[in-house]
Amino acid sequence: MLNYTHSIPTVIHFGKGQISKLARSLTPFGNRVLLAYGGGSIKKTGLYDEVMKILDSEGFTVIECGGIEPNPRIESVERGVKLCKENSIDVILAVGGGSTIDCAKAIAAGVFYEGDLWEMVESRHGILKALPLVDILTLSATGSEYDGGGVISNMKLNKKLGNAYTFPAVSICDPTYTFTVSKYQTAAGTADIISHICEEYFSRTPDSDLADGISETVFKSAIKNLPIALAEPDNYSARANLMSISSIACSGIPSYGKDDTGWPCHSMEHELSAYYDITHGVGLAILTPRWMRHILKKDPSCTWRFVRFAKNVWGLDGEDETALALAGIQKLEDFFKASGIPMTLTELGIGTEHFEAMAAHANRGNHLSEAFVPLTNEDIVEIFTACL
Amino acid sequence: MLNYTHSIPTVIHFGKGQISKLARSLTPFGNRVLLAYGGGSIKKTGLYDEVMKILDSEGFTVIECGGIEPNPRIESVERGVKLCKENSIDVILAVGGGSTIDCAKAIAAGVFYEGDLWEMVESRHGILKALPLVDILTLSATGSEYDGGGVISNMKLNKKLGNAYTFPAVSICDPTYTFTVSKYQTAAGTADIISHICEEYFSRTPDSDLADGISETVFKSAIKNLPIALAEPDNYSARANLMSISSIACSGIPSYGKDDTGWPCHSMEHELSAYYDITHGVGLAILTPRWMRHILKKDPSCTWRFVRFAKNVWGLDGEDETALALAGIQKLEDFFKASGIPMTLTELGIGTEHFEAMAAHANRGNHLSEAFVPLTNEDIVEIFTACL
Repeated sequence: MLNYTHSIPTVIHFGKGQISKLARSLTPFGNRVLLAYGGGSIKKTGLYDEVMKILDSEGFTVIECGGIEPNPRIESVERGVKLCKENSIDVILAVGGGSTIDCAKAIAAGVFYEGDLWEMVESRHGILKALPLVDILTLSATGSEYDGGGVISNMKLNKKLGNAYTFPAVSICDPTYTFTVSKYQTAAGTADIISHICEEYFSRTPDSDLADGISETVFKSAIKNLPIALAEPDNYSARANLMSISSIACSGIPSYGKDDTGWPCHSMEHELSAYYDITHGVGLAILTPRWMRHILKKDPSCTWRFVRFAKNVWGLDGEDETALALAGIQKLEDFFKASGIPMTLTELGIGTEHFEAMAAHANRGNHLSEAFVPLTNEDIVEIFTACL
Repeated sequence: MLNYTHSIPTVIHFGKGQISKLARSLTPFGNRVLLAYGGGSIKKTGLYDEVMKILDSEGFTVIECGGIEPNPRIESVERGVKLCKENSIDVILAVGGGSTIDCAKAIAAGVFYEGDLWEMVESRHGILKALPLVDILTLSATGSEYDGGGVISNMKLNKKLGNAYTFPAVSICDPTYTFTVSKYQTAAGTADIISHICEEYFSRTPDSDLADGISETVFKSAIKNLPIALAEPDNYSARANLMSISSIACSGIPSYGKDDTGWPCHSMEHELSAYYDITHGVGLAILTPRWMRHILKKDPSCTWRFVRFAKNVWGLDGEDETALALAGIQKLEDFFKASGIPMTLTELGIGTEHFEAMAAHANRGNHLSEAFVPLTNEDIVEIFTACL
C-alpha cells in the first residue's frame, strides 16, 4: 500500500428534506449570495422557487448567475466572477449537477485570481483562496459535491481542462431532486460514476483492501440501481444509492494507497467534449470498454486486475484468465448499452477528422506514458478508432 | 436509506515516514505543545525521541503529559487540563493508541469546560470548544484518529463513558509504528475494529449499499490481515491495511443511511472494563458471538442479516438459513480464538458477582430497548452468563 493524504473538509447533508439546513449552511459566511444554476431545469422542478423562498425569508441578498452550460465554459466563469466582484458576494450557492458546481468552484477561486481566468484554468500553481461554496446537488454523476476539482471548457481553443479550485463547504444531497432526471442523463451520470471507479480500480497496487473494496461496492451498487432508476424514476432507494456512490467515486478515496493510474479515459473523453460538446458520461461509456480491450491486449501482465473485476464485480468465473477478463469487459459494455447509451462515436456524428490532434492533446506532456498501461498517441488513436 | 450528515474535518497523513509532516501540522495552531502519551512504549520504540527531536529543532515548547492509562481515567484528564492552563498550551499532540487520543480529546475540551470534569464526561449538552489536537497513531484499533469521540473511566464510580469532544485536526498514521505491538494487543485491536463494524452492520436497513459494502470490506480485510500481522509483525501491507480499516470502522461512515443499532456490545463491554479494567477489544471479542447467538434466537426476523454476514463475509453457503447464520457466528468466534484472545470471562477472572448491576448500567435509560434486537436487563445478564 502506498502513502496518501486524506483531506476533504466538505460537510454532506444527505437525504430527503435536507434543504431545511440550507440557511444555516450559508449564514456563517455572510448575507450576499451568488446563486449559480444551469439551463433552468430547477425552475421547471420547483427547486428554484423553494430555494428563493428560503433565501428571501431568511433575509439573504441574492444575485443570480443562471445559464451555466452542461460543459461549463470559461465565459460563464468570467461572468460569475464579474458578478461576485460587482456585488461583494460573500458565498456562492450552486444548485445543479457537476457542471454548475464545477463552474461555481472556478468562480469562487477566480474572484481572488489576478490575471486572465483561462490562465487560472491552465495553471498548475495551486489555488490558494476562494469564496466559500455551498451546493444543492441535482444529478448523481461527477462527484463535484465532494471533491475540490472542476472542469472548464474553452470552445475557441477546443480545450476542456480540470483543475483543483476549492471544496464545497456544504453539499445538500437530496435524492428526490434527481427523480426528474431523464433516462439519458441518469444513464450518462451512472457511466460517469463507473468511469471514476475504473480510473482508480485499474491500477498495479494489489493490496489496498479498503480502496478496492469500496470500488467494487460502487461498481455493484451502480449495476444494481441504474436499471431500477431507469424503470422507476422516483424509486427513492435506487436514486439515493446512486447519489451516495457518486460522491465517493470521485473523492479520491477509492485510490488511497494505490499508484497513480493517469485517468486515461478522462483524458481522452475531455477531448471528445472539447471538440464536440458531447455528454461527458456518454463519451466515457463509449471509451471505457474499448480502452480496456486495448490495454489488455497490449499488456497481458494486467490481466489479473481484469480477472478480479470479472469475478468480484460481475460474479463471473472460469479457468481461462484472458477469456474471463474479456467477459467482464463485455458485461460492462452490454450494461451501458442496455441502459440506452449510444455506444459508438458514429452515432454521435463524430468521425476520424480530429483523432490525431485530440490524441496529442490528451497525452500532452506525455503524461499517459505513466498510466496503468502506458499509452502512446498511436494507442489513443487506435482506441478512438475502435469507438467508431 | 435513511438521512445522514457526514462531517469529519480530520486530515490523515497515511503511510511510512509521514512524521515528516508533523511540524507543519502543528505550526498553524501555535508554538506551545502538550505532548500526551501512555505508559512509555513510545520511549522503548524510539518514537518519543524522534518526536522530541522534531519539536526541538522546529522551536516548539513542549510540556509533557505521560502515563495515560489503557482505559484512560478522569484523573489523567484533570492532570492534562491543569497542565494546559498552567502552561498556556496552544495545541495538544497525542502520541499513542486510542486511549491516549481519547484522553487528549477530553483534555482539549476540558480546558474550556467550566465545572467539574467528570460532569463534562457525563454531560449530553455538546462540547462547543476545544484546543486543537494532532495525533500520531501507534495502534490500529479504536479509530479515535478519525472520529470526535472519547471514552473516559472513573474507577471510583465503576463508570466508563463515551462522549463527543473534538476531532483531531491532523492524524499521522504510520503503520510501521505498529510493528512492535504485541500479538495480544494486535488481536485485541482487530477485535475492536470488527466490533465497530458489527455494531453498524447488524441493522434493519437493507438498502444502504455503500455502508454495507464498506462494512464487508473491513470485515474481510481484518480477517485476511490479522493472521499475517500475528505471524509477521513487521509485514507492512498487513499492518497498513489494519490501520486504514481501523480509521473508517469507527468513523460513522459504515452506518450512513442505516438505522441506529444502539451499539449494544460496546454498552456491555464498557461495564466489563469499568469494573475489571480489562482490555476493551478482548471484552468485545468475548461478548460479540454470544450477543449474536442470543439475538438470533430471540428474534429470528433478523436472520437475513446474519445470512448476509455468513455469505458475504465468510463465503459460506447453504439452504438452512438459521444453520447458515449460526455457522457465520461460529466462524467469527473461531477467528477470535485462533488469534489468541481468551474467549471466556472466566479466563479473565470475572465471575457473576456484578452482572445485575452491570446490566442495569449498560441499559441505563432503557436505551437498548431500541437496539437492533431490543435487549432487556435480563437479556444482558444472560449474555454475560453465556460468556463465562
